[in-house]
Amino acid sequence: MVQRNIKMILAYDGSRYRGWQRQKEGVTIQQSVEDRLQMILQEPVTVIASGRTDAGVHAMAQVCHFRTASRLGVDAIRRGLNALLPEDIFVGQISQVAADFHARYSSKRKRYEYRILNCEDRDPFQRHYAWHIRPPLDVGEMSQCLSTLEGIHDFSSFRSTGSGNTNPVRTVYKAGICRRDGGGVRILFEADGFLRHMVRNIVGTVAEVGLGRIDRPEFEAILLAKDRRRASSKAPPQGLFLVEVRY
Amino acid sequence: MVQRNIKMILAYDGSRYRGWQRQKEGVTIQQSVEDRLQMILQEPVTVIASGRTDAGVHAMAQVCHFRTASRLGVDAIRRGLNALLPEDIFVGQISQVAADFHARYSSKRKRYEYRILNCEDRDPFQRHYAWHIRPPLDVGEMSQCLSTLEGIHDFSSFRSTGSGNTNPVRTVYKAGICRRDGGGVRILFEADGFLRHMVRNIVGTVAEVGLGRIDRPEFEAILLAKDRRRASSKAPPQGLFLVEVRY
Repeated sequence: MVQRNIKMILAYDGSRYRGWQRQKEGVTIQQSVEDRLQMILQEPVTVIASGRTDAGVHAMAQVCHFRTASRLGVDAIRRGLNALLPEDIFVGQISQVAADFHARYSSKRKRYEYRILNCEDRDPFQRHYAWHIRPPLDVGEMSQCLSTLEGIHDFSSFRSTGSGNTNPVRTVYKAGICRRDGGGVRILFEADGFLRHMVRNIVGTVAEVGLGRIDRPEFEAILLAKDRRRASSKAPPQGLFLVEVRY
Repeated sequence: MVQRNIKMILAYDGSRYRGWQRQKEGVTIQQSVEDRLQMILQEPVTVIASGRTDAGVHAMAQVCHFRTASRLGVDAIRRGLNALLPEDIFVGQISQVAADFHARYSSKRKRYEYRILNCEDRDPFQRHYAWHIRPPLDVGEMSQCLSTLEGIHDFSSFRSTGSGNTNPVRTVYKAGICRRDGGGVRILFEADGFLRHMVRNIVGTVAEVGLGRIDRPEFEAILLAKDRRRASSKAPPQGLFLVEVRY
């Protein structure tokens, strides 16, 4: 039986979900998509993403793939999915790809954005889309620390336990920050890959820099220590967006 | 017993609520605020807003007032409220005002904004904050129609039934539109007051203009007809934001 390999790009608001990966309890993105695909294709389907997002984490462009024996056209699959999926998940591009394409293993680069709302007042409209930090952050100092992450490093200090034995060395192409109107602060990361909770662990630590609790030499020492116990606790999930995956 | 009169500015995400006004069934903004105020002030409190927002409608700055015999300072009231209220309601400014201040009757001007997402793809992040219209809108034509609303007019054609016998004449200071990146279209209204569903009825009709189903002479005829049956059905609530109330 010849199976086609289909690539899809998904956007989702992770607020209501227990993350990407199918679980025994609670609704996940993977399960929501697989269940609808099964209805459309009339066969069980496994959807593999470029990486698992945690509960509450969002994606503007998560890439995933699945194999199917169905001969239904990709546009029909896309229309069917978008009609059946809840409003907080959307299928953008969809296309048939080479049999060896793998959303996770074929990925070359990923971009994440982490949003902080840095002002006294909380904002009801950003409660699911930013980490609210009241005291003024020293964004310049944070920026300096972030730039030290660029290059090839062992990121063991910023990986969470339960990551398995994956190689902790990653190439970070970009780690930067920009300030926006109304207290918005966005931290951008681009790398060949990310360890479990790596972005949130870095943001949690760099926020401490912004608050003056950790200085630059200490931040650099944390990276060099290759010891998770040295970094600060991880930033909350709702500020994190998976922005792009490249192949 | 001397009662103080307290003015508050609220921001709220209306998605979860059955609108402003307390009801027998379902959670409302008024009830959520009053219940917390009662805990803080240890007395029953009635909170009066500048106007009732419908279920799903948002406010960046709804103004309201309440009277209380409590002597608790306004900053303590604000802190208490913000600690007790859910994350989708926030109390901004709070101050003691003259005994005759009334959030509804003293208001001089109100500003509303209506957000449309005009592009092929729906956006999971805007599902609660915009009206998604797929076909391209003729924003120039909509703009022309909106400008004919400026001035003093009888807005009976754009009032919903159940409005009571209020005078249907309103002065519209501004009715305009602007296009933003990514398919965003924002319609702005400023008037001395608005009839029930007036903004949503106007937006519903002007969207038909944008889609080429109603032309400019017809739009003007609808306004002049002073007959609700002539206008189109109202735009959905989630695109509507109460932006400012002036006194």
